[in-house]
Amino acid sequence: MARPGGRSARVQQAVHAAVRELDTEVGRSALTIPLIAARAGVTPSTIYRRWGDIQELLSDVAVEHLRPDTGPEDLGDLTSDMRAWAEQFVEEMASEVGRAYIRDALLGDPESNNASQCSAYAADAIDVILGRAGARGETAPDVETVLDAVVAPIMYRILFRPSPLDAAYARRLVDGCLK
Amino acid sequence: MARPGGRSARVQQAVHAAVRELDTEVGRSALTIPLIAARAGVTPSTIYRRWGDIQELLSDVAVEHLRPDTGPEDLGDLTSDMRAWAEQFVEEMASEVGRAYIRDALLGDPESNNASQCSAYAADAIDVILGRAGARGETAPDVETVLDAVVAPIMYRILFRPSPLDAAYARRLVDGCLK
Repeated sequence: MARPGGRSARVQQAVHAAVRELDTEVGRSALTIPLIAARAGVTPSTIYRRWGDIQELLSDVAVEHLRPDTGPEDLGDLTSDMRAWAEQFVEEMASEVGRAYIRDALLGDPESNNASQCSAYAADAIDVILGRAGARGETAPDVETVLDAVVAPIMYRILFRPSPLDAAYARRLVDGCLK
Repeated sequence: MARPGGRSARVQQAVHAAVRELDTEVGRSALTIPLIAARAGVTPSTIYRRWGDIQELLSDVAVEHLRPDTGPEDLGDLTSDMRAWAEQFVEEMASEVGRAYIRDALLGDPESNNASQCSAYAADAIDVILGRAGARGETAPDVETVLDAVVAPIMYRILFRPSPLDAAYARRLVDGCLK
């Protein structure tokens, strides 16, 4: 099971896996570092040394979950690509699990490194879509504009404003940005 | 010093004041509920009963801080009013103190009531500005559109994306929304 990166990467992998398993088995509120350490086969002090506290560990696990598994789909034109990406983004982020991961990512992250990483995942996907559009000769806005017009409203509403988020809302944001 | 609302309101006022004073004197990381209780002249159990834990208390104090002191200025036209409001909003929220309050408000708030309250403060101010514009006969977007186009990008960048936020950025968002 060794991965490139040696012991440090193996410890991370085992601890993350233990958090995911125990989260399902006993629930978030019952998670403790001794419990996680026992499941991962490491000492509690290994976890404390590396992560400081349980919130920082949960933040790291959350960012891993929020990392997209695949790149954005190529549907042949900018509007279709951006709509499909935004619809999927809303579906994942606004789900109960997505909301919990976003909160975890922000909470245990006083330096905002994990929050920046979440934003970088979105920016990278959008960059791929806009790069493809450019290669097709389509006119496209820049990444920061799409982050402001599409990603920011979705994340703002998830965190601050109780509102139903659906595919139609995602499409409306995309169409407003590309018009 | 009694306020309408009786004992409950007096306790809240004393505890909030104690948090603000101690935050300045000893710093955030040294705050404890027994310390706050002693300063406020209440028992620790009064605080635990009402707020549950220190993060919930800090979240309530943060929302109090984020409440605007005054309504938005009337400068005679929609663009000037929205620009002035957005510039001030960026200045307050993106300051070090503002960022800390936003984090506090989100962190100790599993039910998102305090986060909703923050969003309601912004929505109320925007509503006043748009209402005035309507009374002048100006064409104006609706509140939700301004939240998406102006407030959301500012809050998203504060939380997720290290980027310098300044008055020029606020004006650009407003002009993009009103064009």
